[in-house]
Amino acid sequence: MSKPIRILGIDPGSRITGFGVIDWHGREPVYVASGCIKTLPNDELAGRIGMIVRGIGDLVAEYRPNQAAVEQVFVNVNPAATLMLGQARGAAVAALVLRDLPVYEYTALQVKQSVVGQGKAAKEQVQHMVVQMLGLSGTPQADAADGLAVAITHALRSQGLARQLGGLSIKNGRLR
Amino acid sequence: MSKPIRILGIDPGSRITGFGVIDWHGREPVYVASGCIKTLPNDELAGRIGMIVRGIGDLVAEYRPNQAAVEQVFVNVNPAATLMLGQARGAAVAALVLRDLPVYEYTALQVKQSVVGQGKAAKEQVQHMVVQMLGLSGTPQADAADGLAVAITHALRSQGLARQLGGLSIKNGRLR
Repeated sequence: MSKPIRILGIDPGSRITGFGVIDWHGREPVYVASGCIKTLPNDELAGRIGMIVRGIGDLVAEYRPNQAAVEQVFVNVNPAATLMLGQARGAAVAALVLRDLPVYEYTALQVKQSVVGQGKAAKEQVQHMVVQMLGLSGTPQADAADGLAVAITHALRSQGLARQLGGLSIKNGRLR
Repeated sequence: MSKPIRILGIDPGSRITGFGVIDWHGREPVYVASGCIKTLPNDELAGRIGMIVRGIGDLVAEYRPNQAAVEQVFVNVNPAATLMLGQARGAAVAALVLRDLPVYEYTALQVKQSVVGQGKAAKEQVQHMVVQMLGLSGTPQADAADGLAVAITHALRSQGLARQLGGLSIKNGRLR
């Protein structure tokens, strides 16, 4: 891959949506940005959805990623919480789709396996490895770290597939 | 109210999102349009979300409603189905918010009480009353009828509140 791929990773949540942007040159991920979109807990649905869909739209406009990776939501046992999480996730993916970004999904298990090396890793281990892999001087907030982790997962898995395919670029294709 | 309010009612679903558009002059609802946005069951998440967010965006562009009413999703016992429904709903509300439409929510109970007069009404009774109230010559598809029913619910409840407030217009305000 001659030109770097810029990846926007998103960890959707009903209250906090974490994001991370990295550049991927084919060897190691390079940190670009990370942070959180926080919704107001007492706000009505339209207000919360608006924060997420506009917030992610702004990120895409500012950082111009080529691809997006979204963490697959843990299916909670509480139906109301699951519905809220689904709504946040729907708004996040809507913002990406409206900007014509290819969207890839990864489960929390896949993220932990890719970043830490094993699926049962604790949240702190994911944060630690994100700091190590990107050579950060400080530890990002947990949701921002999850956004970076899913972006790194996409980078590493894209490369893995590209190797299996004999080094073909996956820049304009979809992995699954 | 001198000028009619155009209301877009939406009944979100992971496979079929029903919609109905009515004009409300303060006395009786007038039918404008109704139909469904169907997603492809085997499509990936981004494809399904894209169908909904673009489909509703197109409806707003075509019919130019002043207000939108969305049915509150039944919280299913199956977490995966609840998550899917939440995602569809998040995408639908995102499309409305991005077009700067005020969004009102009504539960299925409120819709049945407003349209049929009692909360335990069957789906067929809702369809029947929508046909009666709008003077339709045929029966709309079930999801389209639900879209019309939530639009009618918003019209009737807006009027009720306006009366309570001494006839104030609610056009630019929010009910709750």
